[in-house]
Amino acid sequence: MRDEFRGDLIEVGRLLVSMAEGVRTAMRNATTALLDADGAAAAAVVARDDETDELYRQVEEKVRQLLARQAPVASDLRLVVTALHVAADIERMGDLAAHVAKTAKRRSPAPAVPPEAAGIVEQMAQVADRIAGKITMVLSAPDAIRAAELERDDDAMDDLHRELFVVLLGPGWAHGVEAAIDCALLGRFYERYADHAVNAGGHVVFMVTGEQLAT
Amino acid sequence: MRDEFRGDLIEVGRLLVSMAEGVRTAMRNATTALLDADGAAAAAVVARDDETDELYRQVEEKVRQLLARQAPVASDLRLVVTALHVAADIERMGDLAAHVAKTAKRRSPAPAVPPEAAGIVEQMAQVADRIAGKITMVLSAPDAIRAAELERDDDAMDDLHRELFVVLLGPGWAHGVEAAIDCALLGRFYERYADHAVNAGGHVVFMVTGEQLAT
Repeated sequence: MRDEFRGDLIEVGRLLVSMAEGVRTAMRNATTALLDADGAAAAAVVARDDETDELYRQVEEKVRQLLARQAPVASDLRLVVTALHVAADIERMGDLAAHVAKTAKRRSPAPAVPPEAAGIVEQMAQVADRIAGKITMVLSAPDAIRAAELERDDDAMDDLHRELFVVLLGPGWAHGVEAAIDCALLGRFYERYADHAVNAGGHVVFMVTGEQLAT
Repeated sequence: MRDEFRGDLIEVGRLLVSMAEGVRTAMRNATTALLDADGAAAAAVVARDDETDELYRQVEEKVRQLLARQAPVASDLRLVVTALHVAADIERMGDLAAHVAKTAKRRSPAPAVPPEAAGIVEQMAQVADRIAGKITMVLSAPDAIRAAELERDDDAMDDLHRELFVVLLGPGWAHGVEAAIDCALLGRFYERYADHAVNAGGHVVFMVTGEQLAT
């Protein structure tokens, strides 16, 4: 019984890692499509969001079976409920990558991000990618210290988000309202992506230590 | 045992209804603060978001206890897992109401929404309020037909969201980039609020019928 539970849990963990890797690749490709104004690449990212949704369904199904068959209690139960939260956060990260890609697609072949904002958006994408990479690591080998580091990465994201608004609202902005709105929404997509990643990290910490991550 | 399970489930349902009523009131008050440019009222909405978070924690705790003590299977288990999803959606609706209030607070005593956009924002708020009200009803008396109606309300929201962008991007917009960004983000907050409400409705349908709501 105990071995069966371990086996099921490892399977759930594997699905979560696949999801995390998938949404990391999705955001990476979405950013490239965005900065290259490549509509076809953007469309490919949007089309592949179904794969994340399908993995999410598999996690839910697996967890349901596991709860029904094994009726775990205490810390085992905590692991299982946490896995559901993590899956929901990663699924949403996939949606946000698709939102970035949709913005790129809508504007293509014109670029959605004017040159003045491209540098900041690129940095936001780098932080997002770093955070997504840590989630995969934390899931593969739960580590409270690394999960706590995510908070600092998230601060870097918040700083960039503020910088972006300084550019959009500055006297030098010459690209009008439409581009400003696109950039503001893009900024929000990256920032929310990071938030969900940090949330997922917090859940993993809780899973490992039983302590709520201070936010 | 069976009676104890029923009792716990009723308690979880009561908490969910409290959460749903709370986030409905929050969005209503946030909208009033926004359209009246009332910073103090906006600050009060932001401060009360903790109450929703606290109810969310209570739902999670209750569900954890229930799973551990009763080890429900099949349709009972489905009810319990669904309750967690619904709670997460409603918690997020509360965050979005707080985002609306924060925008109002940041701009006050100036209005964040110029007159040309105020009518559409008010209509979005009305649809959001109608949807939130239905969630409360569906939770109190699960009803697949009413839950399915939420999809239509969500279409109305999407139409308004598009209308808002027509105004922001139209030749008549004379309020500059900052107000346009605020309005675009506000539009997104109302639209996401509705999405989460529809999600919650879909979960309730699944709970009652075992059928996934077509989206």
